[in-house]
Amino acid sequence: MSKLVIVGTVAFDAIETPFGKTDKILGGAATFIGLAASHFDVDAAAVSVVGGDFPQEYLDLLVNKNINIEGVEIVKDGKTFFWSGKYHNDMNSRDTLATELNVLEHFNPVVPEAYQDAEVVMLGNLHPLTQQSVLDQMTKKPKLAILDTMNFWMDIALDDLHAVIKNIDVITINDEEARQLTGEYSLVVAARKIHEMGPQYVVIKKGEHGALLFHNDHMFYAPALPLEEVFDPTGAGDTFAGGFAGYLAKTEDYSFENMKNAVIYGSTLASFCVEKFGTERMQNISKDDVEYRLKEFKRLTQFNIELS
Amino acid sequence: MSKLVIVGTVAFDAIETPFGKTDKILGGAATFIGLAASHFDVDAAAVSVVGGDFPQEYLDLLVNKNINIEGVEIVKDGKTFFWSGKYHNDMNSRDTLATELNVLEHFNPVVPEAYQDAEVVMLGNLHPLTQQSVLDQMTKKPKLAILDTMNFWMDIALDDLHAVIKNIDVITINDEEARQLTGEYSLVVAARKIHEMGPQYVVIKKGEHGALLFHNDHMFYAPALPLEEVFDPTGAGDTFAGGFAGYLAKTEDYSFENMKNAVIYGSTLASFCVEKFGTERMQNISKDDVEYRLKEFKRLTQFNIELS
Repeated sequence: MSKLVIVGTVAFDAIETPFGKTDKILGGAATFIGLAASHFDVDAAAVSVVGGDFPQEYLDLLVNKNINIEGVEIVKDGKTFFWSGKYHNDMNSRDTLATELNVLEHFNPVVPEAYQDAEVVMLGNLHPLTQQSVLDQMTKKPKLAILDTMNFWMDIALDDLHAVIKNIDVITINDEEARQLTGEYSLVVAARKIHEMGPQYVVIKKGEHGALLFHNDHMFYAPALPLEEVFDPTGAGDTFAGGFAGYLAKTEDYSFENMKNAVIYGSTLASFCVEKFGTERMQNISKDDVEYRLKEFKRLTQFNIELS
Repeated sequence: MSKLVIVGTVAFDAIETPFGKTDKILGGAATFIGLAASHFDVDAAAVSVVGGDFPQEYLDLLVNKNINIEGVEIVKDGKTFFWSGKYHNDMNSRDTLATELNVLEHFNPVVPEAYQDAEVVMLGNLHPLTQQSVLDQMTKKPKLAILDTMNFWMDIALDDLHAVIKNIDVITINDEEARQLTGEYSLVVAARKIHEMGPQYVVIKKGEHGALLFHNDHMFYAPALPLEEVFDPTGAGDTFAGGFAGYLAKTEDYSFENMKNAVIYGSTLASFCVEKFGTERMQNISKDDVEYRLKEFKRLTQFNIELS
């Protein structure tokens, strides 16, 4: 069974959408990535940090999903990272109401020894130096290193970001971030420029408009499943990344052809994530739910034009 | 061979994009629809009106593409409809600089007798009463009536629009227009409400984000082909509609399954349209060009996940 190292925040979120608002609930990139990856037969370990205020039941939840949490440091007298945001009516834009770094400010990720030879490393959105330090701890070059990032690091740590981007295989990034990183409006041209920065594979996430996978001159596109109601988009991008990474780790096939399937699995899992607040929906998806929705994706996208 | 009646403007456009600007060039919904439909083995006729200022060479161009122009009225002492627009840097929004209705103001479409029993009618964007008058001239109920419209008619002629929408099979509309027509943000819910207004099939065009086809509880999605450069989006929606209508008229199969293919053909042809100013690219696409790009669409969207 492949090992998958997941680095990212384990956090509190407080979310407001047109449908309602929550108190502090479970959130964080590593949480969403882990919950999505847990749908695949992989040996996943989360590397993160929380404060003494973090409820044991949240940690138990991860453990019950077969996510190893040996690498989740608990800073007894510290407070857990907290993010709060409010979504606008169109659900495509949001205002950040609060960001309290807390224990994240001095986070030094430690990859448990048993996972330092993991086949797949998923570097969730964190400071690029933190992401690099995880790569540096791997005793064996991973078969696949995937990195997610955001515009914030382009603003304040662009050189560090460029340095770590050189060392990874796949980058997942949203459309606006791809444009910011390259100065190119066309996503095709932006992806080519990102290739030149290092990654062999570029995934551009377009939210409700789906995701594009680029590899040299090859492109693949997966739509987001059109839904009657998007309840809370928080975590959808991380869920996509977790499904993508989990599927590849399970199948141990890192070819472009198989990455197409990984993108479909990522999109499928993300389509559940947005149906309820926070991780609520992700905690309770069955194998049948996933299978059924994959069939919906097939019906949504597959056609039969015979070509010569 | 199926007959296809195409109603819409044949016009002058003057276009400005970040890549350059044009003088008055050939444009109009019926022009783009006709050029797209001409890629299929159908007996197509344009119903429209132009002024005495309209160059014979533009009319010849349509005739050379096997488009019957008996129904294109020439008002000798009138001026041709003229539209001028300027696209913003993102190419997704534009300002209208000028709209001169001219001969369009008193346009009474006349369907040539030989085409009053056409199998397929494509009602391009015009006043809903004009669209209805074309339907009224059909001596035989068409196998498929397709209607394209825009927000302008929702603003000034909503009742007339509702009246004609009742009588058609397929509506093509963009996402913002679908939202305006229904008051629903979710396109899934909007499509359902439009179904209830009459059309069995709803196509929602999302520009660079592709197109959705809805039929009862069935959905199909076709992306727009990601391009290095979008040169001029003018006419892309009409080209999509023309490819859609032309393919269905040729195959004479109006099932949902075959409409999926029609959406793919529409998207394929639209991907050419935006590569040059106005109709320039559409005038010179070979069968091989189309075939090659269809293969690109297949590679872009088809995957192989085995499901039980």
